[in-house]
Amino acid sequence: MLNKGIFITFEGPEGAGKTTVIAEIYKRLEQEGKKAILTREPGGIRISEKIRGIIHDNEHQEMDGMTEALLYAAARRQHLVEKVVPAMKEGQIVLCDRFIDSSLAYQGYARGLGMEEVMTINSFAIGDTMPDLTIFFDITPEEGLRRISNSGEREQNRLDNETLQFHEKVYEGYQLLLKKFPDRIVSTDASKPLSEVTENVWKIISSQLINK
Amino acid sequence: MLNKGIFITFEGPEGAGKTTVIAEIYKRLEQEGKKAILTREPGGIRISEKIRGIIHDNEHQEMDGMTEALLYAAARRQHLVEKVVPAMKEGQIVLCDRFIDSSLAYQGYARGLGMEEVMTINSFAIGDTMPDLTIFFDITPEEGLRRISNSGEREQNRLDNETLQFHEKVYEGYQLLLKKFPDRIVSTDASKPLSEVTENVWKIISSQLINK
Repeated sequence: MLNKGIFITFEGPEGAGKTTVIAEIYKRLEQEGKKAILTREPGGIRISEKIRGIIHDNEHQEMDGMTEALLYAAARRQHLVEKVVPAMKEGQIVLCDRFIDSSLAYQGYARGLGMEEVMTINSFAIGDTMPDLTIFFDITPEEGLRRISNSGEREQNRLDNETLQFHEKVYEGYQLLLKKFPDRIVSTDASKPLSEVTENVWKIISSQLINK
Repeated sequence: MLNKGIFITFEGPEGAGKTTVIAEIYKRLEQEGKKAILTREPGGIRISEKIRGIIHDNEHQEMDGMTEALLYAAARRQHLVEKVVPAMKEGQIVLCDRFIDSSLAYQGYARGLGMEEVMTINSFAIGDTMPDLTIFFDITPEEGLRRISNSGEREQNRLDNETLQFHEKVYEGYQLLLKKFPDRIVSTDASKPLSEVTENVWKIISSQLINK
């Protein structure tokens, strides 16, 4: 039913340059006359942005890891139903900044809730709508966090305040996902200059578009 | 670990008089020198009240049923961890207005998401912390809704705007739960005057306290 569109998600540690690169990819797709939308998680629509606000609020230090995982799943569900699925049905290319792999790496692995457990609640949220392609921005947590602290532009949220150890666990979680989903997830070296990362991501996506 | 306290939940259709009766029960417990807390779902603490705000917002007509179920589970988790479990560990009696059975009846059955599916995400949220006793306020949806519309005090929320047919399904869902959990859920006739309902609920709870 959803096979008309292409669902591409972007994953990686904080400060990997995802947002900048995806915006450039989106521009190129538009220049080529492709119908595409650019969206992000958690958020992208009214209800999910409100849920994002609760998750990211720096004051919510008391938030339990499972509450966090359930809120991400709720935001994901609403975003999928309202934005991703309708765009896919119209045959559009959907570029989504973070999706299920973030929950598996952050809550499932780094917070220690269990990848299987987090997959269970996410299966409830997304059904069988898995991404056609996921691009992993490979950068060490140290390098990613250095980039964030060097940039004055980015607003710090509750998750940015986690320890380096937490972000190292997130990175380990992503490595496990790369092994688990080798056909879906493609890794790109995100330690290179952003222009080079953009070219590499563009090549990966172009080859995917040719194959469709 | 949690066996020191007693966890009592109250369930039923809208307008069943739960809130009024629970407040009276709480007062009596205090008069008897029992340590008790009175709380409600969704809500009861900061993060869960914010989630409640998103769920109940009359403007959120676009909210998907599964999003709603996941938000209830998230609010439940945080409320349990922050408020219910600590009170139980102190040996308190916890009186909670709505808990897991509401999700099973409203989202699982009335919205058609499936009781098993909704139980799955709730098991993730609550682990094995099921109520020791659940009191079901038995009143037909017609009678309950009539009470709400006769009372000017109660603020209407998004769920109050559902059709009578929806509330009839909720009632059917509760009937299934009564059959499924006969040892845990005790029904009380809530069509009687509230003073009489209070006496009956007090009897049920008193016998439970003696048995502990």
